[in-house]
Amino acid sequence: MRAEIITVGDELLIGQVVDSNSAWLGQMLNKYGIKIHRINSISDNAEEIKTQLTECLQRSEIIIMTGGLGPTKDDITKKTLVEYFKMGWRLDEAVMAQLVAFYKNRGREMLEVNKLQADLPDGCKTLFNFWGTAPGMWFDIGEKVLISMPGVPYEMKNIFEFNTLPLIAEKFKQPKLFHKTIVTINIAESILAKRIEHIEDALPSYIKLAYLPNWNMVRLRLTGTEQIGEDIVAKIDSITNEIHQILGDSIVAFKDLSMAEIAFELLSEKNKTLSVAESCTGGYISHQMTQISGASKVFVGSVVSYSNSVKHHQLGVESTLFETVGAVSEQVVIQMVEGVRERLDTDYAIAVSGIAGPNGGSEDKPVGTVVIGVCSNDKTVVRTWHFIGDRMNVIGRSNNMAFDMLRKLILEN
Amino acid sequence: MRAEIITVGDELLIGQVVDSNSAWLGQMLNKYGIKIHRINSISDNAEEIKTQLTECLQRSEIIIMTGGLGPTKDDITKKTLVEYFKMGWRLDEAVMAQLVAFYKNRGREMLEVNKLQADLPDGCKTLFNFWGTAPGMWFDIGEKVLISMPGVPYEMKNIFEFNTLPLIAEKFKQPKLFHKTIVTINIAESILAKRIEHIEDALPSYIKLAYLPNWNMVRLRLTGTEQIGEDIVAKIDSITNEIHQILGDSIVAFKDLSMAEIAFELLSEKNKTLSVAESCTGGYISHQMTQISGASKVFVGSVVSYSNSVKHHQLGVESTLFETVGAVSEQVVIQMVEGVRERLDTDYAIAVSGIAGPNGGSEDKPVGTVVIGVCSNDKTVVRTWHFIGDRMNVIGRSNNMAFDMLRKLILEN
Repeated sequence: MRAEIITVGDELLIGQVVDSNSAWLGQMLNKYGIKIHRINSISDNAEEIKTQLTECLQRSEIIIMTGGLGPTKDDITKKTLVEYFKMGWRLDEAVMAQLVAFYKNRGREMLEVNKLQADLPDGCKTLFNFWGTAPGMWFDIGEKVLISMPGVPYEMKNIFEFNTLPLIAEKFKQPKLFHKTIVTINIAESILAKRIEHIEDALPSYIKLAYLPNWNMVRLRLTGTEQIGEDIVAKIDSITNEIHQILGDSIVAFKDLSMAEIAFELLSEKNKTLSVAESCTGGYISHQMTQISGASKVFVGSVVSYSNSVKHHQLGVESTLFETVGAVSEQVVIQMVEGVRERLDTDYAIAVSGIAGPNGGSEDKPVGTVVIGVCSNDKTVVRTWHFIGDRMNVIGRSNNMAFDMLRKLILEN
Repeated sequence: MRAEIITVGDELLIGQVVDSNSAWLGQMLNKYGIKIHRINSISDNAEEIKTQLTECLQRSEIIIMTGGLGPTKDDITKKTLVEYFKMGWRLDEAVMAQLVAFYKNRGREMLEVNKLQADLPDGCKTLFNFWGTAPGMWFDIGEKVLISMPGVPYEMKNIFEFNTLPLIAEKFKQPKLFHKTIVTINIAESILAKRIEHIEDALPSYIKLAYLPNWNMVRLRLTGTEQIGEDIVAKIDSITNEIHQILGDSIVAFKDLSMAEIAFELLSEKNKTLSVAESCTGGYISHQMTQISGASKVFVGSVVSYSNSVKHHQLGVESTLFETVGAVSEQVVIQMVEGVRERLDTDYAIAVSGIAGPNGGSEDKPVGTVVIGVCSNDKTVVRTWHFIGDRMNVIGRSNNMAFDMLRKLILEN
């Protein structure tokens, strides 16, 4: 069983848009035991689309297309599919009724071009789009299927999860895949691999191990394929235990969580609150925490103290320190972290000050120098890091190490 | 001339990692007049890699591979290339010297597996990696080229920009492409397309127009291909002027900028400062502003007032309002925006309070209800929005409309 994705859009090829849809689709299908074998990104060009369709239909059973269904002239996917399958057109009355309601509810005029969204190839099932105006389409091609959906991420996700996956699960029954993710922090990929080499060498053929490094973290992913006579879950659990015994404290989670999510779970369990003082991370740590629905249970707020004046007035950092030791110093960060915890009245706090680059470095404090502090009511821990990489890298690594320092402080208590 | 990307990695296919490398490569190559025709994401599997290589080498002149060059067992790209091209191995002494220095500088032990990074196929040029341990490789295949680089984004970017692009520019000379991006806000894609339909219909064959919608914005991209006897830049400028006359104030920029970048440029020009009070956006607006290197010139700081207590104590919002009108109300946002401007002592301020979802909505204030305020020293503007989409959508749309309200207020003054 092979599944493939075709993403259609010049914007992907010239890099104006990052394709986040494919990763999401890969995750969703994996839960159903279906693995994506290829992702093909191509141009808004009828010939390219047709060639790609022929290739995909030769080698795969499930083909998922996204993109090219908008109301404008550069959107040619629907027309191309009608040509490719030599179908006629049908007006989908249910889609039309939904379109009329869609525009009425938003107080927007419905144009002729919008009405065209209800015209569909006569050989497809409609996959309703409750969030937008372009419906998805399901084409049965014997034992295979082609699914076409709009490229707007939240419209696509809604159509896929609620209207497409049930049809896929009905049409295709597959051996199940089991994934286990082990999240490690602050250990280099090669050192990690060396330490667990003997475990990796002894893996049975139906279990694979992959390393996914990102911003001072490596996620280890064990993937097992259902086998008759084998308890895959128990086998993966036992391998996980072996890895745990070797890596110990370098492991921060046994499921695929971000560092913000790990900290959120710990704080939630213990019913504790958090505030943050951010300088070089500029709001990113707060954004990571507030990406989590329900974050308000533990997260009270932050002060993004980009200027020294805000560090002084909003957090109580002594102004003289900026001249004597500088804003990127352990002394300043200690006052930032204790200041934000006290003023925002929380159990724990995080503070970060550093040089994210590409400018602003000096010989003493090169780009990538970041001071991170965490504190509770009776303890403050501060540490100076030297991160490598570009601006977003320094911000991302600071975020991960800050949440890890917080995690350790919480676990101590 | 065709260029293609092959990204190698199971993590992309099961969706644990979003492929941001391809978009970046697409942008970089476009500047050199080279368009990516396809992006192919495949598994860490030798047969898949070989099959894909054969397909790509048949139809394209430039093939760029990323991924699979790490030190662990799931990284098989280098070994597979040696097999595919039937090459031997060579030890690259310069890479080895660099590896020794790399580990020494970081105070880390150099493992046997790390040394293997200096073993390269004997038929390739080395593309040095100054940020990591896996060098890139350049394979000349007659008039074609295959480039293999690590998948870690900042390592790949560095290798590509400084060590690969100059070689590509030397080997391939191409007709130039000219891009112009027109950024519009708060106008639906279909309405926009209708208004400029006659312009689109009259475009010469060598100029294309594409629509890129995202979070209450649509970017229009005009792309012209160099033609003998035609002044493409002048032609694109004249089309841009026609579009400008029709769309007027819906246009916020004539180059590909984010709303934060647009606000940053305006504030910089006028030497004005900004502070932000964020509730439902939770730090995202500040993060967008501080993604910009040099943001400290205009951005002073923020208060992320997720809890009502922080809204009251740090911003001075009257506590009684939370019970009478609620935290998501124009009254509260007016006090937030004026409070943060006064306390952080800036020329302008933004404040946002809303319901990002998926929970927390009510009949009166459904998910997607967001109140945005902006102010200067003598004027405050506040408006209630109703956004659609998931949590990140509501946050992203709030961000864009907040910066647009700020932009309008600055332009009024």
